[in-house]
Amino acid sequence: MSPKIPETQKAIVFYKNGGDLTYEDIKTPKPKPDEILINIKYSGVCHTDLHAWKGDWPLDVKLDPYLVGGHEGAGVVVAIGDNVKGWNLGDYAGIKWLNGSCMNCEECELSHESNCPEADLSGYTHDGSFQQYATGLAVQAAHIPKPEEGSKWYGKDDEYLAEIAPILCAGITVYKALKSSEAKPGQYVAISGAAGGLGSLAVQYAKAMGLVVVGIDGGEGKEELFKKVGGDVFIDFTKEKDVPKKILEVTKGGAHAVINVAVSEAAISQSTQYVRSNGTVVLVGLPANAYCKSNVFDQVVKSYKVVGSYVGNRADTREALDFFERGLVRSPIKIIGLSELPKVYEEMESGKILGRYVVDTSY
Amino acid sequence: MSPKIPETQKAIVFYKNGGDLTYEDIKTPKPKPDEILINIKYSGVCHTDLHAWKGDWPLDVKLDPYLVGGHEGAGVVVAIGDNVKGWNLGDYAGIKWLNGSCMNCEECELSHESNCPEADLSGYTHDGSFQQYATGLAVQAAHIPKPEEGSKWYGKDDEYLAEIAPILCAGITVYKALKSSEAKPGQYVAISGAAGGLGSLAVQYAKAMGLVVVGIDGGEGKEELFKKVGGDVFIDFTKEKDVPKKILEVTKGGAHAVINVAVSEAAISQSTQYVRSNGTVVLVGLPANAYCKSNVFDQVVKSYKVVGSYVGNRADTREALDFFERGLVRSPIKIIGLSELPKVYEEMESGKILGRYVVDTSY
Amino acid sequence: MSPKIPETQKAIVFYKNGGDLTYEDIKTPKPKPDEILINIKYSGVCHTDLHAWKGDWPLDVKLDPYLVGGHEGAGVVVAIGDNVKGWNLGDYAGIKWLNGSCMNCEECELSHESNCPEADLSGYTHDGSFQQYATGLAVQAAHIPKPEEGSKWYGKDDEYLAEIAPILCAGITVYKALKSSEAKPGQYVAISGAAGGLGSLAVQYAKAMGLVVVGIDGGEGKEELFKKVGGDVFIDFTKEKDVPKKILEVTKGGAHAVINVAVSEAAISQSTQYVRSNGTVVLVGLPANAYCKSNVFDQVVKSYKVVGSYVGNRADTREALDFFERGLVRSPIKIIGLSELPKVYEEMESGKILGRYVVDTSY
Amino acid sequence: MSPKIPETQKAIVFYKNGGDLTYEDIKTPKPKPDEILINIKYSGVCHTDLHAWKGDWPLDVKLDPYLVGGHEGAGVVVAIGDNVKGWNLGDYAGIKWLNGSCMNCEECELSHESNCPEADLSGYTHDGSFQQYATGLAVQAAHIPKPEEGSKWYGKDDEYLAEIAPILCAGITVYKALKSSEAKPGQYVAISGAAGGLGSLAVQYAKAMGLVVVGIDGGEGKEELFKKVGGDVFIDFTKEKDVPKKILEVTKGGAHAVINVAVSEAAISQSTQYVRSNGTVVLVGLPANAYCKSNVFDQVVKSYKVVGSYVGNRADTREALDFFERGLVRSPIKIIGLSELPKVYEEMESGKILGRYVVDTSY
Repeated sequence: MSPKIPETQKAIVFYKNGGDLTYEDIKTPKPKPDEILINIKYSGVCHTDLHAWKGDWPLDVKLDPYLVGGHEGAGVVVAIGDNVKGWNLGDYAGIKWLNGSCMNCEECELSHESNCPEADLSGYTHDGSFQQYATGLAVQAAHIPKPEEGSKWYGKDDEYLAEIAPILCAGITVYKALKSSEAKPGQYVAISGAAGGLGSLAVQYAKAMGLVVVGIDGGEGKEELFKKVGGDVFIDFTKEKDVPKKILEVTKGGAHAVINVAVSEAAISQSTQYVRSNGTVVLVGLPANAYCKSNVFDQVVKSYKVVGSYVGNRADTREALDFFERGLVRSPIKIIGLSELPKVYEEMESGKILGRYVVDTSY
Repeated sequence: MSPKIPETQKAIVFYKNGGDLTYEDIKTPKPKPDEILINIKYSGVCHTDLHAWKGDWPLDVKLDPYLVGGHEGAGVVVAIGDNVKGWNLGDYAGIKWLNGSCMNCEECELSHESNCPEADLSGYTHDGSFQQYATGLAVQAAHIPKPEEGSKWYGKDDEYLAEIAPILCAGITVYKALKSSEAKPGQYVAISGAAGGLGSLAVQYAKAMGLVVVGIDGGEGKEELFKKVGGDVFIDFTKEKDVPKKILEVTKGGAHAVINVAVSEAAISQSTQYVRSNGTVVLVGLPANAYCKSNVFDQVVKSYKVVGSYVGNRADTREALDFFERGLVRSPIKIIGLSELPKVYEEMESGKILGRYVVDTSY
Repeated sequence: MSPKIPETQKAIVFYKNGGDLTYEDIKTPKPKPDEILINIKYSGVCHTDLHAWKGDWPLDVKLDPYLVGGHEGAGVVVAIGDNVKGWNLGDYAGIKWLNGSCMNCEECELSHESNCPEADLSGYTHDGSFQQYATGLAVQAAHIPKPEEGSKWYGKDDEYLAEIAPILCAGITVYKALKSSEAKPGQYVAISGAAGGLGSLAVQYAKAMGLVVVGIDGGEGKEELFKKVGGDVFIDFTKEKDVPKKILEVTKGGAHAVINVAVSEAAISQSTQYVRSNGTVVLVGLPANAYCKSNVFDQVVKSYKVVGSYVGNRADTREALDFFERGLVRSPIKIIGLSELPKVYEEMESGKILGRYVVDTSY
Repeated sequence: MSPKIPETQKAIVFYKNGGDLTYEDIKTPKPKPDEILINIKYSGVCHTDLHAWKGDWPLDVKLDPYLVGGHEGAGVVVAIGDNVKGWNLGDYAGIKWLNGSCMNCEECELSHESNCPEADLSGYTHDGSFQQYATGLAVQAAHIPKPEEGSKWYGKDDEYLAEIAPILCAGITVYKALKSSEAKPGQYVAISGAAGGLGSLAVQYAKAMGLVVVGIDGGEGKEELFKKVGGDVFIDFTKEKDVPKKILEVTKGGAHAVINVAVSEAAISQSTQYVRSNGTVVLVGLPANAYCKSNVFDQVVKSYKVVGSYVGNRADTREALDFFERGLVRSPIKIIGLSELPKVYEEMESGKILGRYVVDTSY
């Protein structure tokens, strides 16, 4: 391990679900032989972090003695385990939701590591990115490309690492969903929740993939935002009486694919009404206790698919980051200090949050 | 047109929904320039024929002046329209559910003719196979292969045409469903309703496609029938307490594909519980007013698909018939005269029907 | 048939291979029941027209009594056969290389109509688009979309029909080749012959499909043209010593796909040296008597594919035209009168041709 | 590490290319944190072992101080590295050609580990299976299923491990080639070299995958062997004058896929003449310095593919072994002692070898 790595470091931790989120000095973790150690520069904050802290989900979080949250961390490789291949000190690397998987089961063999029954999750079962130094399984850690000459990010590495942080979860998730949709360049993709955080990333990835994008969302300023990030046709569900009918019309027969990032059970089931024959409805957003209901007769006669999409694998990660580095996707962020993170949890809990926060681990 | 074709012929017709089914002499139809005329030898009888007669469905049937039902007719080409290519007099040909489609829309261009909005349906919007001479659009009529030397059917053409009749709807439907499942040789496919009419065909096609077949059904003699047609593992839902758990166990993690031919809404939703991660649930059977409900969280995390499958296209037809001609699939039938058909409708309506009836149009 | 259709019309015809190309009045053809009649407004001129006239190829051209060449004709539907579905008088329609196919064979069933053994070819076995009125099989004729409000072509229908003509062969061919390559958005595609007629269309389609485009070509002004149509990285084979090495470098390991539009046997075999592992080399251009040679050991260890791509099917056609209507692809043309066509044959034969000619059938 | 593992063990080693192959006591290797140690019971012998020993190939073998050959080793897990997941002591495991890969590059991410530029090869760059204890990277070692009750192998574990050994290279290779061919159940696959060692395995896998198998080979007893392992149509190239024509005839238009296991350059190029339009020619066998030559015009018009296939990945391995355990594939072997291995090299070098040898490491 390099001499520059301190014995202790700053982190935000909690000792029990819903307990205090404290900014303190904890031991710097040491990478196992198959891990790398990343000096996290910036980390995005995601709603999942709130759920992990509160213990909302059926799966227990790790708490021994504490948990460090966060799963959108971007930084620099500072130490490498003895059995690691393919990484060098100084590389840019990212901590994402999937910290590691068994790499031995049928799902892992098929590059479906997210579906591995023994998935190890950053900020959930493995200390995450709300600390200055985090470990990640070498084969799963994200390879963040260095901005090349000619790239808009060339020479702006700090801004780059800050803005790429949310791509490590939100960006990969929507990119993978678009891949799962099997929509081909030139086809119509409808995005339900198009002007939200995930949605506006989805619109940009969809455009970069050659798709024609129909956005569904509602409220003040939403259409403007949608158009600003490149969307083609906007449908405001607060104004349009019959959303499915309108979409069938503008897409001349239905969207080839629908990406459901809206956290709404009703929107999900509605999306089965405006998907094209032989098209695909993709489930991404997770409304609590929600069911997707499709009319069997209709689904058979139109032969459409409904498919779940869950984060992304190593290849999806590499590709999603590459689109970002090439300047095709922007992720508007607000930077605050790591020490200020607890107030973001408060905002998330009270539902007041607007936009994407990224913490700078240096203060 | 060949001189042997009579001006009138025998048929079973009805003049209004639910009206009398009469055995009478009607005019022999003449093929349009893009149609062929088939001397129907045998026709299978399907539950859909009952629905068409009763007018159960939202789509009106043709009634001008009458309708001839039937969409599983096997026979011989006796006349060919002027613009037809690819057919010769004397060829074996089949009338199936899809009599014709526009061949011009996006669905038709992509070989998804079943999903054409202007589909013309045999025994529904186009006089069907319960007559001695029926017309079919040349590009959609089924090419029934002549039994080759070495085939078990060689020299037994009458039996062959009788037994192949139900393949024209039931066989194609389950074969297409298996293709839609994207299950690969060596993988587990679960068939819900495995010992019924569609189910037992599905088991045979699945085995011919190299799959390991888990059958779900219930009641006396069902397991025996399932094993007789080649099934691997049978699960009797009347005896097994926790069907999903049992299937997860015998398939070591879930079926790669599930084919729902059982006409049961509960069975359909249950099938989402035992499909493997990244696997596919196929909807085929059509319980009245049914919905398929999948838990969104579960579908996302397991990333499985739910897909509707509807009859088959021209290529599916050719392939399904080819498996039959090669002797890999049997379809047990009971042959009666066309004139006796009305009593089969009675049996269907009273729910007493057992097995597949095929009518011989010669008496 | 509408009264406005004249009994005779202007055309360029020849009576024997290599014979005079004469501008004369011939009978207006009448559509068969499964055909449409198109009033051709503009037709592109392609090198294949030269080969057809000279009789260069092993397949005989139709000559009874003459042949009308041309297979890139854009115009308006003026008559419709009795059995045709999906067309209306006044629709825009196109004559392309594939005038018709049997629609009954295995290839046609699978939407591979170009590979139909009984393909009927415009300007080769069927009178083509160098006349004012041409017939086309209704299911194969190209549906040319009308420019919609908001489209750059809206209100400029003449220019639109003139410029879309070359898309009907050249555009579809390169678009289909890109689809055959299975390259995904964000991947590298190398185009050999990138600054030629087909090449510059290929670059534009590739960009619209989200690909990163490496162009290979040589000579004055080529790089400038390549960059103008949106290409990313240009490699001049007249200046670069080791082309494969350079491409492996700029693509970080090889192009995911290579599109060979260059008519050069050496370039084709060379392309197997810079394709990525598991990538695809697509053959499009047809150098006389050429062979594609790949080193077996290398192809096995790198597991790449070599695939032939031939024009496109009905869906490819619709999609390629749609990209054009949306303004994502331009095809620079020179318009001359139909009567002036013979001099274009002269230019083609002497190899002096520059750019794409389109004939206006009105003079 | 378990106390039963001896400090030294028996192995066949060589110290320089072409040097003596000696049977001696060498140190038992210790697994790294990401490796497992396998007590090899049986190992197949492959022609590649001869090439490695002689140093025939451009890639150097490891020689520090010696090399242990062999890459078809079946045995039992006796030690497990500290960072390994998914393995238990006592599991059956296999050493195959690909001992390890970086798991970090684009190829590895996409489950194309065989194409990893840093592939570590058993019996070539990593001591292989001609020893009693061999190490393998845990994520790449083959999971050999234990025979289940009902399996023909149940209770016959010794025979099972001996016979499964050749599956670890030959079996996986042909299975993967069949997958690469994208042939679907019911389609025609032609196997060039069908009665050889790889060929007879290919026939069995193809039948288990639902394909119709046309075998091409020549000489005494070949047809008999082909039929015995389940092949459908045999073509003896020593008797048939026009092999391509005959295959086009029996397959009614060409084989949907061709698997070239014959080590013959002429046979490979010939296979492009009898593949169906839109079909696939798969390259597997590696004749020295061979090229695959396809006629460009023909490949374009018929739109067929030529694809290289190289061993298999982790999923292919699991699947190929599963077919074997289910009793669908047999691999006839001759068992000799490890100490007798040098004479097999002699036989291979003199070209006298018949059938597949498997060494028992216990004597």
